[in-house]
Amino acid sequence: MGNSYGKIFKISTFGESHGAAIGVVIDGCPAGLEIDLNFIQSELDRRKPGQSRITTQRREADEVEILSGIFEGKSTGTPIALLIRNADARSKDYGHIADVFRPSHADYTYTAKYGHRDYRGGGRSSARETAARVAAGAVAKLLLKAVGNIQINAYVSQVGDLQLTTPYQQLDFSQIESNIVRCPDPQMAEAMIQLIDSVRLDRDTIGGVVSCVISGTPVGLGEPVFDRLHAELGKAMLSINAVKGFEYGSGFEGAKWRGSQHNDGFYTDKAGAVRTQTNFSGGIQGGISNGEDIYFKVAFKPVATLMQDQTSINADGQAVTVSGKGRHDPCVLPRAVPIVEAMAALVLADFYLRRRADKL
Amino acid sequence: MGNSYGKIFKISTFGESHGAAIGVVIDGCPAGLEIDLNFIQSELDRRKPGQSRITTQRREADEVEILSGIFEGKSTGTPIALLIRNADARSKDYGHIADVFRPSHADYTYTAKYGHRDYRGGGRSSARETAARVAAGAVAKLLLKAVGNIQINAYVSQVGDLQLTTPYQQLDFSQIESNIVRCPDPQMAEAMIQLIDSVRLDRDTIGGVVSCVISGTPVGLGEPVFDRLHAELGKAMLSINAVKGFEYGSGFEGAKWRGSQHNDGFYTDKAGAVRTQTNFSGGIQGGISNGEDIYFKVAFKPVATLMQDQTSINADGQAVTVSGKGRHDPCVLPRAVPIVEAMAALVLADFYLRRRADKL
Amino acid sequence: MGNSYGKIFKISTFGESHGAAIGVVIDGCPAGLEIDLNFIQSELDRRKPGQSRITTQRREADEVEILSGIFEGKSTGTPIALLIRNADARSKDYGHIADVFRPSHADYTYTAKYGHRDYRGGGRSSARETAARVAAGAVAKLLLKAVGNIQINAYVSQVGDLQLTTPYQQLDFSQIESNIVRCPDPQMAEAMIQLIDSVRLDRDTIGGVVSCVISGTPVGLGEPVFDRLHAELGKAMLSINAVKGFEYGSGFEGAKWRGSQHNDGFYTDKAGAVRTQTNFSGGIQGGISNGEDIYFKVAFKPVATLMQDQTSINADGQAVTVSGKGRHDPCVLPRAVPIVEAMAALVLADFYLRRRADKL
Amino acid sequence: MGNSYGKIFKISTFGESHGAAIGVVIDGCPAGLEIDLNFIQSELDRRKPGQSRITTQRREADEVEILSGIFEGKSTGTPIALLIRNADARSKDYGHIADVFRPSHADYTYTAKYGHRDYRGGGRSSARETAARVAAGAVAKLLLKAVGNIQINAYVSQVGDLQLTTPYQQLDFSQIESNIVRCPDPQMAEAMIQLIDSVRLDRDTIGGVVSCVISGTPVGLGEPVFDRLHAELGKAMLSINAVKGFEYGSGFEGAKWRGSQHNDGFYTDKAGAVRTQTNFSGGIQGGISNGEDIYFKVAFKPVATLMQDQTSINADGQAVTVSGKGRHDPCVLPRAVPIVEAMAALVLADFYLRRRADKL
Repeated sequence: MGNSYGKIFKISTFGESHGAAIGVVIDGCPAGLEIDLNFIQSELDRRKPGQSRITTQRREADEVEILSGIFEGKSTGTPIALLIRNADARSKDYGHIADVFRPSHADYTYTAKYGHRDYRGGGRSSARETAARVAAGAVAKLLLKAVGNIQINAYVSQVGDLQLTTPYQQLDFSQIESNIVRCPDPQMAEAMIQLIDSVRLDRDTIGGVVSCVISGTPVGLGEPVFDRLHAELGKAMLSINAVKGFEYGSGFEGAKWRGSQHNDGFYTDKAGAVRTQTNFSGGIQGGISNGEDIYFKVAFKPVATLMQDQTSINADGQAVTVSGKGRHDPCVLPRAVPIVEAMAALVLADFYLRRRADKL
Repeated sequence: MGNSYGKIFKISTFGESHGAAIGVVIDGCPAGLEIDLNFIQSELDRRKPGQSRITTQRREADEVEILSGIFEGKSTGTPIALLIRNADARSKDYGHIADVFRPSHADYTYTAKYGHRDYRGGGRSSARETAARVAAGAVAKLLLKAVGNIQINAYVSQVGDLQLTTPYQQLDFSQIESNIVRCPDPQMAEAMIQLIDSVRLDRDTIGGVVSCVISGTPVGLGEPVFDRLHAELGKAMLSINAVKGFEYGSGFEGAKWRGSQHNDGFYTDKAGAVRTQTNFSGGIQGGISNGEDIYFKVAFKPVATLMQDQTSINADGQAVTVSGKGRHDPCVLPRAVPIVEAMAALVLADFYLRRRADKL
Repeated sequence: MGNSYGKIFKISTFGESHGAAIGVVIDGCPAGLEIDLNFIQSELDRRKPGQSRITTQRREADEVEILSGIFEGKSTGTPIALLIRNADARSKDYGHIADVFRPSHADYTYTAKYGHRDYRGGGRSSARETAARVAAGAVAKLLLKAVGNIQINAYVSQVGDLQLTTPYQQLDFSQIESNIVRCPDPQMAEAMIQLIDSVRLDRDTIGGVVSCVISGTPVGLGEPVFDRLHAELGKAMLSINAVKGFEYGSGFEGAKWRGSQHNDGFYTDKAGAVRTQTNFSGGIQGGISNGEDIYFKVAFKPVATLMQDQTSINADGQAVTVSGKGRHDPCVLPRAVPIVEAMAALVLADFYLRRRADKL
Repeated sequence: MGNSYGKIFKISTFGESHGAAIGVVIDGCPAGLEIDLNFIQSELDRRKPGQSRITTQRREADEVEILSGIFEGKSTGTPIALLIRNADARSKDYGHIADVFRPSHADYTYTAKYGHRDYRGGGRSSARETAARVAAGAVAKLLLKAVGNIQINAYVSQVGDLQLTTPYQQLDFSQIESNIVRCPDPQMAEAMIQLIDSVRLDRDTIGGVVSCVISGTPVGLGEPVFDRLHAELGKAMLSINAVKGFEYGSGFEGAKWRGSQHNDGFYTDKAGAVRTQTNFSGGIQGGISNGEDIYFKVAFKPVATLMQDQTSINADGQAVTVSGKGRHDPCVLPRAVPIVEAMAALVLADFYLRRRADKL
């Protein structure tokens, strides 16, 4: 019962990695929004497997079909259902793990919780589910574009030890899509690619960090006290497979500081807008957007599926060897970029509509 | 419309810092739970202001009154309403900030969002609201105690640069309440207290980190795909005032690792229970508890209210000096410990009840 | 876990008949609404016990206290908590029914469901809880008044066999409050009062019907497909104690008709507004308000508490005699009028705010 | 944003009458439930168009496809998505009404609310959407069957003036499916069929009533105070197209009675179970099932689409003649029977799971 997200712009995803299809129903998209199917597909293409040598070689066209909610190119205010058929589902690759609990996978917890699970490719716990989120997130992005100039840019800022420390203000976001690792710094991108390549040759995997910057946000998004903007962003990010941490603004580093260093002084700019001198708040104060850039980081652990033999147990509790089969990503970070953006778009779209009820 | 948390064990808080009262309504507490009012009060006492020289000197007894839902000492399954009157509300201390946007406070965003706000003591954005959470969290703790042996232990693991790096397994949690900063390592506690003292003398504030360890959790808490256990814990923690980051298990550090280092191999212990050799997963796999200890960290920024003069603007956009008045904490960390525990208890209690619908 | 109502304008009520207090938290009232405390109190006075000889003689001032959410007379967008202390709670009147299941009361079902219940005065199942709804409904009415000219008029249209068959268009709603039974037809009112009087002398009770007319509703309230306007009105009315039925527009009578009689033809009036020739739709088409008057009927059963001896069983399953003690209404209809209006106001206020998210 | 129903066993439907498909996502079905696809299909067959001469002649196989949530014949606890493609969608039949507001249809209100609508066959407002409910309701029925012996029997008890007044206890429910109008009394069934036939020849339509009896319900379903069992049943029924009224137990008739007639006295039966002598409460007391039969009635207005010419207006407010085209039901009652059952099953399944959180 945790497969929906959002209060007004609400999505419900469904589907397993090797079932018939995955998909999403969006309930609460306002009527009159022009839906560019090509844009939705292009976002899915950014996430889809097999897009480069550093991603899994599973081949999925991830072609999206619109089932409802759109008429003559525009949303009608009724639920938008989007469907993606699973094509290249080599379920036989998974027969050998039907009864095995793979290390750091969800096999054991799903079995314990539900008693009965679809083990093929991880079933519902597979990151394949995030394709549905990216499709819905694309609609949210269209909404944010239509009602304002909200820009969401995520990028890979860390792979293993390789950290891009350049402040985001000095990066050229137009470079993000210019390389297969989605890092806006070409040199760092090259290093990251090499690292992932070497990890892949080791039949190992590696973690990393996605950074995200949102600009053009209006003041007033986020709802005290539990649905603070950063609390919902945090939940949304932590709900992505393999995420281990979330921080925004000054983050964990800010915990070391003094208030006199950390406080963001207000001033009025030439256009008469309220601005802050610094932005350690990360664009959010009291859980509500203040109009400054929102920025945050999302930590991903290394993928659990290795091409190496590992020791584990089966459903009977007996020790077994899990051998590395199937097709998997040595590093999820490049494909995680559009997922992070999609979840951010979903959070913002929801708060954008919720904000309409704030005042008389 | 963001003042409720939880799906089955659901709380709704209300109240402003200097209004008549704050409080909480718990809807969904199962019937038959023995409610120990003294325990609720003792939890509030751990959070209450004026408890030591390193906390704010505002004096609030924070005496809790039960308005409903409990009969002859036991819950009845109907809403439990808990009320805490505001006593020491020196609202006149705040007249000077009625029209001022204090740096890194919620004054500006609340004004922009709602048009009309209670400025006294920060109104709804004040951390005073968390007393209501602690009261509700105490009920959640009683539930978790009654149905199992779930232990939640939070402690201050960092103040400014001072970091307690000892693995939690080597700490003596019984020492947490033995000192006013709530750090289980006596030597580190002493250093932290001195640091806070010196910060206070500087009329400044300082941030820090609360760590939290939950043991005795049954397998199966958490709901894929959006309501993953760590996603809800993250949201709950990020909804606490001044929080800037959340990580669990290996956290941001894990982003540097390789899968072969990070994977937690399963084994069967002598009692026949499924266990993991290591616990970099932080007790959560696929968003569901696996029975190992759950541990996470929560980063707090330094308190925004300083006893120093700061430059800012007023509601008309004119530059003003904000002078440091009122009574405030130089460091919220010691008082944040019971709040972190309360939010963790609320998350777990909710999932504990949700889990009952998992299987036929 | 069913003690909240509404999606954006959301209320959560709490409290038992003979506990410390009853109350309500409203989350989602827009900021900037002028809150007239006298109006809230006057609505409570319309519902309060002891207001006339045909209502229960329990004496409750039902004085409402605002705990939060209102500052300088206006809502702030934060939760509005309203508290009503229980004063005249003669709990000792109920000792004799602690273990008894009174006929057609909730004693048995509460005991079976929760195991442990507050039996005093019916505890949570008492209609006393509706005072909290009336208080919240008064705030909703203020909202509807502030944003438009929405008028809600409920009245008693039936007591026992006495039915007011005059079409509502021919009634003078200003007469509703002119008599103690709240029927706008003075002659019928007199007859109803006499009937209730005679029922009371028989130590018996009697049922009836409340009719409700809402005018001035904007087009567009209600949300397909499950949250149709009349579906929510129906749920809201059926959630009131003692209600057995709900119908709107042509209602059960319309089931006998042919489509050619029942269809409401559209026309454009002189002001250019879309109108219908007839209004058998009851102002709602496809679950959405069409701007015509909304009208519906709510059937109430006779109060279950009689001043007569009745046979029943106790918690051990043994036959017992339930003697008629305590103070109760011979007919709830007069006091039900403000409750019906309050629930209607809550439904409309919620949809009024939800409608803001309909279009781009 | 009103396209979901249920709190734990939650369904979200999507799809338009003449779009690509309709469907439903069920989130919260417990794992381990055997899913009999043939049963789901058979329920859809009871609702499908073209099943007899007294229903619309639109031909839809209404073949259901399972997209997710079921593995090796059993539910896995993950969302169950069910898809029904639209086949016989003669959209060109609707070109002539693109700009017309048909009397007593949702054309006008949808246009006013959303600005942009799919007019083909009524789009989202078409009763075609209820096929998705029937599919989901079939899963709910399987759940209720698996966990107890809950039987839901709906039948047509009235068409126009023809009323079946026989108490349900004297009816033979096994006869319901023996005739095309779904009335358990063969003689009355014949009369109803003749009436519908004659109405159809008049190119008119007619309303009626569906009665529903639920037996075998455990004690404790329903949640005070807003989510009373009958309040949710009422909402669920009123959310079905064309429904104008709902009553349960003694209903509107009970409003005429005295308490001394209406009260259901308790007794202990030979098996030691708590029972009531009479059942005017309709199996529900205080909003909670008491174990007796639940029975209620649902009033349906005559279908708005006539095969006659009607006067109305177009989107420009100009008077137009709406001519009767397309394929429609002269009377929805026979096809409404499985829909009423489906909604009842969904309400009960949800409360069945919610009840698990009642007690410690």
